[in-house]
Amino acid sequence: MSDESKIISGRKGEHIKLSLSDDADYDSVTNGFENYQFVHHAATETVIDEIGFEAKFFSKKVDYPFIISSMTGGAKEANNINERLAEVAKALNIPIGVGSQRRSLLDNKFDRSYKSLRRIGGAIPILGNIGAAQIVKSKNIIDDINYLIDLIEADAMVIHLNPLQELLQPEGEPNFKGLLKKIEKITAKIKTPVIAKEVGAGIDPDSAVKLLEAGVKGIDVAGAGGTNWAKIELMRSGNQSFLSEWGNPTSYCLRTIKKLKKNYKFVLISSGGLRKSVDYAKSYALGADFTAAAKPILKLVVEKDELAAVDYIKNLFEDIKKIMYLTGCKNLSDLQKNKLINKSEFH
Amino acid sequence: MSDESKIISGRKGEHIKLSLSDDADYDSVTNGFENYQFVHHAATETVIDEIGFEAKFFSKKVDYPFIISSMTGGAKEANNINERLAEVAKALNIPIGVGSQRRSLLDNKFDRSYKSLRRIGGAIPILGNIGAAQIVKSKNIIDDINYLIDLIEADAMVIHLNPLQELLQPEGEPNFKGLLKKIEKITAKIKTPVIAKEVGAGIDPDSAVKLLEAGVKGIDVAGAGGTNWAKIELMRSGNQSFLSEWGNPTSYCLRTIKKLKKNYKFVLISSGGLRKSVDYAKSYALGADFTAAAKPILKLVVEKDELAAVDYIKNLFEDIKKIMYLTGCKNLSDLQKNKLINKSEFH
Amino acid sequence: MSDESKIISGRKGEHIKLSLSDDADYDSVTNGFENYQFVHHAATETVIDEIGFEAKFFSKKVDYPFIISSMTGGAKEANNINERLAEVAKALNIPIGVGSQRRSLLDNKFDRSYKSLRRIGGAIPILGNIGAAQIVKSKNIIDDINYLIDLIEADAMVIHLNPLQELLQPEGEPNFKGLLKKIEKITAKIKTPVIAKEVGAGIDPDSAVKLLEAGVKGIDVAGAGGTNWAKIELMRSGNQSFLSEWGNPTSYCLRTIKKLKKNYKFVLISSGGLRKSVDYAKSYALGADFTAAAKPILKLVVEKDELAAVDYIKNLFEDIKKIMYLTGCKNLSDLQKNKLINKSEFH
Amino acid sequence: MSDESKIISGRKGEHIKLSLSDDADYDSVTNGFENYQFVHHAATETVIDEIGFEAKFFSKKVDYPFIISSMTGGAKEANNINERLAEVAKALNIPIGVGSQRRSLLDNKFDRSYKSLRRIGGAIPILGNIGAAQIVKSKNIIDDINYLIDLIEADAMVIHLNPLQELLQPEGEPNFKGLLKKIEKITAKIKTPVIAKEVGAGIDPDSAVKLLEAGVKGIDVAGAGGTNWAKIELMRSGNQSFLSEWGNPTSYCLRTIKKLKKNYKFVLISSGGLRKSVDYAKSYALGADFTAAAKPILKLVVEKDELAAVDYIKNLFEDIKKIMYLTGCKNLSDLQKNKLINKSEFH
Ligand SMILES: Cc1cc2nc3c(=O)[nH]c(=O)nc-3n(C[C@H](O)[C@H](O)[C@H](O)COP(=O)(O)O)c2cc1C
Ligand SMILES: Cc1cc2nc3c(=O)[nH]c(=O)nc-3n(C[C@H](O)[C@H](O)[C@H](O)COP(=O)(O)O)c2cc1C
Ligand SMILES: Cc1cc2nc3c(=O)[nH]c(=O)nc-3n(C[C@H](O)[C@H](O)[C@H](O)COP(=O)(O)O)c2cc1C
Ligand SMILES: Cc1cc2nc3c(=O)[nH]c(=O)nc-3n(C[C@H](O)[C@H](O)[C@H](O)COP(=O)(O)O)c2cc1C
Repeated sequence: MSDESKIISGRKGEHIKLSLSDDADYDSVTNGFENYQFVHHAATETVIDEIGFEAKFFSKKVDYPFIISSMTGGAKEANNINERLAEVAKALNIPIGVGSQRRSLLDNKFDRSYKSLRRIGGAIPILGNIGAAQIVKSKNIIDDINYLIDLIEADAMVIHLNPLQELLQPEGEPNFKGLLKKIEKITAKIKTPVIAKEVGAGIDPDSAVKLLEAGVKGIDVAGAGGTNWAKIELMRSGNQSFLSEWGNPTSYCLRTIKKLKKNYKFVLISSGGLRKSVDYAKSYALGADFTAAAKPILKLVVEKDELAAVDYIKNLFEDIKKIMYLTGCKNLSDLQKNKLINKSEFH
Repeated sequence: MSDESKIISGRKGEHIKLSLSDDADYDSVTNGFENYQFVHHAATETVIDEIGFEAKFFSKKVDYPFIISSMTGGAKEANNINERLAEVAKALNIPIGVGSQRRSLLDNKFDRSYKSLRRIGGAIPILGNIGAAQIVKSKNIIDDINYLIDLIEADAMVIHLNPLQELLQPEGEPNFKGLLKKIEKITAKIKTPVIAKEVGAGIDPDSAVKLLEAGVKGIDVAGAGGTNWAKIELMRSGNQSFLSEWGNPTSYCLRTIKKLKKNYKFVLISSGGLRKSVDYAKSYALGADFTAAAKPILKLVVEKDELAAVDYIKNLFEDIKKIMYLTGCKNLSDLQKNKLINKSEFH
Repeated sequence: MSDESKIISGRKGEHIKLSLSDDADYDSVTNGFENYQFVHHAATETVIDEIGFEAKFFSKKVDYPFIISSMTGGAKEANNINERLAEVAKALNIPIGVGSQRRSLLDNKFDRSYKSLRRIGGAIPILGNIGAAQIVKSKNIIDDINYLIDLIEADAMVIHLNPLQELLQPEGEPNFKGLLKKIEKITAKIKTPVIAKEVGAGIDPDSAVKLLEAGVKGIDVAGAGGTNWAKIELMRSGNQSFLSEWGNPTSYCLRTIKKLKKNYKFVLISSGGLRKSVDYAKSYALGADFTAAAKPILKLVVEKDELAAVDYIKNLFEDIKKIMYLTGCKNLSDLQKNKLINKSEFH
Repeated sequence: MSDESKIISGRKGEHIKLSLSDDADYDSVTNGFENYQFVHHAATETVIDEIGFEAKFFSKKVDYPFIISSMTGGAKEANNINERLAEVAKALNIPIGVGSQRRSLLDNKFDRSYKSLRRIGGAIPILGNIGAAQIVKSKNIIDDINYLIDLIEADAMVIHLNPLQELLQPEGEPNFKGLLKKIEKITAKIKTPVIAKEVGAGIDPDSAVKLLEAGVKGIDVAGAGGTNWAKIELMRSGNQSFLSEWGNPTSYCLRTIKKLKKNYKFVLISSGGLRKSVDYAKSYALGADFTAAAKPILKLVVEKDELAAVDYIKNLFEDIKKIMYLTGCKNLSDLQKNKLINKSEFH
């Protein structure tokens, strides 16, 4: 194990532990969904049993438009977790993201561990993951990314943009100079589509435009209101900062980025603090094609077991069916047709 | 008694008991009227004693534009309650609705009990009642409904749309597929006008349009803020659900559906959480032709007596007279002429 | 003393006592001024000592645009109070209103008592006062009013419109039918200008239009937020009512009635819950020509003495001078030039 | 020492002591910045180390667009404080303002003390300071001001407009008649540019227009939300006043005055209650060219030492760098490009 590689491994473990505690949540910033309300549709003719959630994730069919968010890469514990998350994804035939594959670029000892993921997951879409900082630093970015894709037979590559985290991380590299140019090069040359993703502070509409112009085919907003990386990094370093409540609420990201669909073709993924079923349903109503979650799934797998996670996701969609039935929607995109209104107009 | 029929009878009794408790109210959703305020009209020339509330309910004259909402059908206790409610309606010459007549389609033992209703009520308008689920299931819907109409010599037929209740009821049938087509057929063929009604989650403007297009002549919004069927069904089943605070506030339903009067001719009925006199008055101001209540009347009849219920309704209209006097209205429709404004503009 | 006359005398005493207690205030309705904020004007060149408040009340010059509101008529105690209020008005050379002169129409024993008012007041404007109910009932309204005018050598006649009070007063006459026609006749024929006035529930813009069309030359809004006659009458009768928080906030009345100045020439008087100096200043900023108060002046005269009341009013205008200086106003009408903004825009 | 001069000296000391206590803050009025929120920019390419804050203060280059606000003139203690503040300004190469030089116009004994300021400060921009009241009173205003400029070799002259303070100061002179005419004369004739400044109640847009028309080249808004001179003067005199919460929030001043940049060329300085790093950053986002603070710097110098003050300012700009990085800004003026939005739109 190289030195840098060991540090990452330790960091990953620490991240996982800290992220599971309630202290890792925002204090005042919310995911924003509480400002919206569904309109009950009395004359619904929706047949619950006819609702299907099958969707296409790029070229592959999945059973739910739900992604297990990128979390762990090749840490020992992480690997074990990844295998368990893969069981969940497999059971539901949904996409799963791996955590940052940064370490594989440094030390190929860990590459092996990824094999099990594809073995367990079978044909499910697997998303590779690499950070903006790594992209900026890499000298052979196309080769590097293709290497990471091959390692896990990835169906798409996620580039996470985490400027806040890099800023507060003791070992962080808060410098993304040249990022967009490189993303342009990547999207033109690698084998899979690219998804741009925050890690909990939210993609803003301006960033979205830049990223779409650079050729990304998916935006995972990963907005504020859920896992709070600023706080996690501050806990790790024992510091305090005014940045512990920084970020764009998930609903804000969706509402503003959805408008870009007029001009760009891309998959809009809602994540960041989605906890209650209505949050997921409101995400689709605000324009999301997919929803995603990290912490809730991780928590269930770690504190309970794979089945609990499978149940959580199934129940989620059972609840969403109820909401669709009550709002008179036959499919998820119907939810976008004036089914959700601003609370302030609801009287 | 058929098996299904017995279940209904037991369910009805349970419903009545649970609905009377305060636990059956919404916790956070309100009827919405608190957002509106009457403008005092100092130069009023209204003469209180000249105010009359006589109104036409379809072809019959009534003394107040107030309906005792559909509650009980043929349960033993229910029947007794219906007779007492009929005494109240008769004393005031106002319309009364019966609860779901579903059981009469299964088991004609109960038909007798309805006779007393018309005997007591005399010529008052009596509203039949059947649920969307029954309509969808029925093979001979026109015959069935005409049969129910004849049973009580109904002046109008209420079709209640209760998707939320069906969803949460252990024995519920949450499937209204084909409902609107059937309503279209019904309104074209049966002897009486049809009223569409929710049961406490509120008719939304989209549903209203569909229902009016299908030929209904009345909309009883039965909005959220009052009797909360989701909670009642959850109490019955011992479950919890995020749906316990679901529904469109009554004021929202009125404000949005009233606008449809430009294009459709129909009776707009306000109900759902009307408790204070001002709520009833605000209903007329927001466009209601009739108001209605279920729980307050039931509670008085059950816990006190018929006279108490008669007094409640009389006092209501005494209070409405005061409000009309103070806002300078000679009749109820005057209340719609800028007499009510949004609280946020009242400074 | 006629019987009816005795009752009035007793009622007046009771009114005075009850109105002085804090229980006679609104619980939730406010005068509305808290929604507005003055903009500080740093480059002010206002010279405080050059500010004068001289104004014209119809044809007479007064030293402050402030009126001691109509309160007491001929009750024994009342008369004594009137004399003391007259001392205050005289000391400041400001207008004073007498309370309802209704009793003088019934029993001329009390006429004498008014003489002292004019004797003490000298040339100050004195406002007669009669209620809408009396006007409606009177058979010889022009003679009656001219008689009341002569009694106190009135400079203007106030007609108070108090539908809420009449409604809740045990001995009330809530029937103003024909009022506007009669006011039209009055304004055409009597010797003085007529002012229409509420008593604490606020004149609304619709009433104002009707009254101005009928020829009144002044509107005293007497808005909600101050003395609450509904509560006072309810205390007297031992009843409770949903009407205890009824009325138009004073700021609402001013903001909406001020706009009528484009089409009508009239004196706009702000009263109703004015207590703090800023409330008076905001009244001028919202378009008032005069401000007025009842309870604060009465309280000082009754619980302290005339001097205290004189000081209160003087201090008020000292404070207003400060506000004018700080907002860069040379005269009161300057206050209307964007000096006051809605709090919600003040950031 | 002349008598008047002694009084000023004592007043200055008292001011300093009182201003440092928490009682000298506003109770309810805020600087307004809490209504705004930065939008996180995930695709930032800002390189923190490339951010420079060098700016031009009129013709001189400074290292930060930050001014140590005008505080103390020639009081004994004051002088000592000024020397220490000058050390801070020198260490950072930033402008510093002196407190009112009024005393120097009365008694030239104090002139000496200013020499040390320029000696310590070297070439940093030093701002002279004189109050509106002195300007209005002066018979030889051009000579007087040129004399004050020479005393400290001032780079700009600040005229402070403090009507509220003059009003509440026992020895105050609340009369600025003729001020603007005189400012016009001054800006035309003196050697340095003129900056107009409040002292904590905020310059409003109307005043700004007048001042810019009169030729001033800088506006320091010194808005409400920070040091509260009304309260300080009330503490000194032992009085209470409704004016203790008077003033324009700093954000309001910036938002409204910034718009004048279309028509006038001037330096917009934000001050008044800036305490947290985000407040400074939001100031630039709302249009400020420079920010400034008085109390925070004074407090550190008096209660800790010069180094603490230097650190405070350095940390401030370190934090601003972070905010610029997180909002994707390369320089401060980028912050004005939709980086800050109203909180109510942030969901
Ligand atoms: C333990 C943990 C590790 C994570 N690691 C990564 C990562 O390596 N790459 C990445 O793009 N996002 C990572 N994330 C962020 C998540 O993918 C997700 O965007 C974020 O947590 C917000 O979703 P949530 O509120 O459902 O947790 C991680 C999250 C958690 C909780
Ligand atoms: C005990 C009870 C039984 C009810 N049964 C029926 C019914 O059979 N059919 C129906 O259309 N509505 C039924 N309702 C709903 C009422 O008609 C009404 O729409 C609803 O309760 C809202 O009005 P409220 O807030 O005044 O109670 C029932 C209500 C209660 C309280
Ligand atoms: C004791 C008392 C008696 C009043 N009597 C009369 C009256 O006879 N006629 C009248 O027009 N208004 C009467 N008013 C109402 C006042 O003129 C005034 O409009 C109202 O009190 C609101 O002002 P305030 O909040 O300053 O008290 C009376 C008020 C008080 C407190
Ligand atoms: C002790 C003290 C003395 C001050 N003296 C002056 C002064 O003489 N001239 C002036 O223009 N402003 C003076 N001010 C006002 C400041 O320059 C500044 O505008 C105001 O305090 C708001 O900034 P702050 O909230 O950062 O304190 C003084 C402020 C303080 C705290």
